[in-house]
Amino acid sequence: MPHIALDENLPGIRGLFAYRPETAAPLGQLAEVLLRGPSSLSVGERELIGAVVSRGNDCTYCSRSHAAVAAEALEGGMPVVEAAWEDIDGAPVSAKVKALLHIALAVREGGKSVDEDLIAAARAQDATDLEIHDTVLIAAAFCMFNRYVDGLGTIASDDQDSYQGAGARLLASGYTRL
Amino acid sequence: MPHIALDENLPGIRGLFAYRPETAAPLGQLAEVLLRGPSSLSVGERELIGAVVSRGNDCTYCSRSHAAVAAEALEGGMPVVEAAWEDIDGAPVSAKVKALLHIALAVREGGKSVDEDLIAAARAQDATDLEIHDTVLIAAAFCMFNRYVDGLGTIASDDQDSYQGAGARLLASGYTRL
Repeated sequence: MPHIALDENLPGIRGLFAYRPETAAPLGQLAEVLLRGPSSLSVGERELIGAVVSRGNDCTYCSRSHAAVAAEALEGGMPVVEAAWEDIDGAPVSAKVKALLHIALAVREGGKSVDEDLIAAARAQDATDLEIHDTVLIAAAFCMFNRYVDGLGTIASDDQDSYQGAGARLLASGYTRL
Repeated sequence: MPHIALDENLPGIRGLFAYRPETAAPLGQLAEVLLRGPSSLSVGERELIGAVVSRGNDCTYCSRSHAAVAAEALEGGMPVVEAAWEDIDGAPVSAKVKALLHIALAVREGGKSVDEDLIAAARAQDATDLEIHDTVLIAAAFCMFNRYVDGLGTIASDDQDSYQGAGARLLASGYTRL
């Protein structure tokens, strides 16, 4: 049960966005710029970073909903997400995305866990400054969203199939209409 | 040295905001709503939450800069911040703020660390739903800002006195003009 009074028909962050529109606006805009704005990383790659960090933080709502979006956007679908959840290096994604996912998981532990070796490994795969910047900020932002969603005890289904409709809608409409 | 090419005259998040104005805009707006917007928590109390979470995350730039703002805003000045860094329960703040700081430090560990006992303790001090909501989101947001600042290896002085000018400016002008 949520720690504060939220609309019980709106799980996860949806109930929080409805509860506090003043903070929902910049949060939605941040997600929109990072996950949908112009980027040399595809929407599927960026959503995969969010899904992997959220899984690391054990946030059911965020990991399942962003897995659903990533699965919609990535050519290989849900098996790619499940492989990345299991073992980044074994997942069917590019060497650059693997290096960026390792940076993202370091950010999840803490900012100071991002060391020169992780950065050098990403640069060896031609990751740009902007791709490294956005990877760090996407991972950091999900560390916020995960804590926001679970810190207020919001409800979430653990059935991946129940997120497919929302995933398709989020892929089509983005984050500023939530 | 920062992991990406940033303006070396702009320490901490200032260099990141200059590097990527597209994400700086919603990030600044989020901080403005949470730390300066209408609230039954004072600006000093909200900045103190940010300074305590940032100290817990060992983020020099964020802990020292928000300590400087909190010290400007709180009647007791920097000794209040230092006491809260040392031991929340021994700090000269209200029982409600102590309970909210305990929630904030639980959020820092992870969203699921916020349990019913922490919420009940805050309610026993008349904390409202909105105060609990904003405390969780402020703490979660600082978990993002701390990771953003340190994950990209930005530079920061560890001399508290060097932050006093910036603290006074941030208190006066807020976060949307950064």
